[in-house]
Amino acid sequence: MPAPGLLPGMELFLGLSEPALADVMNCARLRHLPKNVTVFAQGQAADRCHALIEGSIRIAQSDEDGAQLVVRFIGPGEMFGTVALFTDRQYPAEAVTMVDSTEISWTEAALLDLIERHPRIALNIVRIIGTRLREAQERLRELATQRVESRIAHMLLRLAAQAGQADGTGTTIGFPLTRKDVAAMCGATLHTASRILTAWEKTGMITTSRQRVTIRKLAAIKRIAEDPGA
Amino acid sequence: MPAPGLLPGMELFLGLSEPALADVMNCARLRHLPKNVTVFAQGQAADRCHALIEGSIRIAQSDEDGAQLVVRFIGPGEMFGTVALFTDRQYPAEAVTMVDSTEISWTEAALLDLIERHPRIALNIVRIIGTRLREAQERLRELATQRVESRIAHMLLRLAAQAGQADGTGTTIGFPLTRKDVAAMCGATLHTASRILTAWEKTGMITTSRQRVTIRKLAAIKRIAEDPGA
Repeated sequence: MPAPGLLPGMELFLGLSEPALADVMNCARLRHLPKNVTVFAQGQAADRCHALIEGSIRIAQSDEDGAQLVVRFIGPGEMFGTVALFTDRQYPAEAVTMVDSTEISWTEAALLDLIERHPRIALNIVRIIGTRLREAQERLRELATQRVESRIAHMLLRLAAQAGQADGTGTTIGFPLTRKDVAAMCGATLHTASRILTAWEKTGMITTSRQRVTIRKLAAIKRIAEDPGA
Repeated sequence: MPAPGLLPGMELFLGLSEPALADVMNCARLRHLPKNVTVFAQGQAADRCHALIEGSIRIAQSDEDGAQLVVRFIGPGEMFGTVALFTDRQYPAEAVTMVDSTEISWTEAALLDLIERHPRIALNIVRIIGTRLREAQERLRELATQRVESRIAHMLLRLAAQAGQADGTGTTIGFPLTRKDVAAMCGATLHTASRILTAWEKTGMITTSRQRVTIRKLAAIKRIAEDPGA
């Protein structure tokens, strides 16, 4: 049985008592996953609720022609792959580890039993999914109405809010971020995303080191985000 | 007290017993709203859970420059404006009646009490929001990777699935749909959306009468939806 100390920071179990957390841990499965492992594939039958303890996971959705959208990056403490249990029971996207990671998961039956004993979990799921729905709607609006520079700036700000580590000189985003990922999150071509990020690096607004992006001039990135039409 | 007969078809109250539905009705507020009434404004403090009994509502989100995205149309039986109660307590979009409508709503306190007595409601909310999150992610992928013809075709098919009335000659979408709405749902300009819809009318794939769109050649619209890059 994994240690209950892993859970208190998780939004999924917010507000649960110590005995309730122990109950949650009792029926959990913990797995260590190396880099580049597929946790689940798009279209696969969904049968578990997942959360990440450590590491990073890329959730991406492809269409028939292979065009890919990065739906979301998952960081430590975040739930993933759970909406499918409540909808059509198929994972709508694939989940792949971006670095060595540790996931914790529950079978569907275990999750429903837990919700029955601790209904607070259901409200936590509503809040988590509701927040993601809002974010998806904001991205939709950006994609429909804003130029690509603003969309990339918005995405960097969102990732910094989700998984940023600030020191005196900037905020580093805690996901290994390739230019292809940036393009696939913003609906841009690789060429365009590269051109924009290179320009921002040249003017010192961001720096990149070993796939970690650091925002150096937050005010400048915010100005670009808030100037959708320029 | 409104008649409990209004509720059984609502996804929000799926699986509830007769006495539970009576309990739900006991604390509901019913309102008749003429056409073009703002049910709530974007940014307004959220304090109620809403559902539509009759009519149509347009949910739309604007940015600082007034660029607007139609997030969703709400038809009879559907929940709306409820995610905000579980997130930052501000409506992220406006809700405006498109025709004479009847809404039913509950205060936040009443909703939380109902969930405590009938936990099934929380699972229903998870399923409703989860389904909408999926739809938003699909629209994001379409917007990022598909040409505008495919996006408009996908949107007509989704609206037909949500609120379509089929007869022998076609499927009529149950929302009054302007060309501006179509553009604002698909991230297209009014000019482009108009051009495409006019072309489809000329070839008999759709017909429009008093703002109601009827899909006449379903197979042709599906072909356009599934050919994202042509």
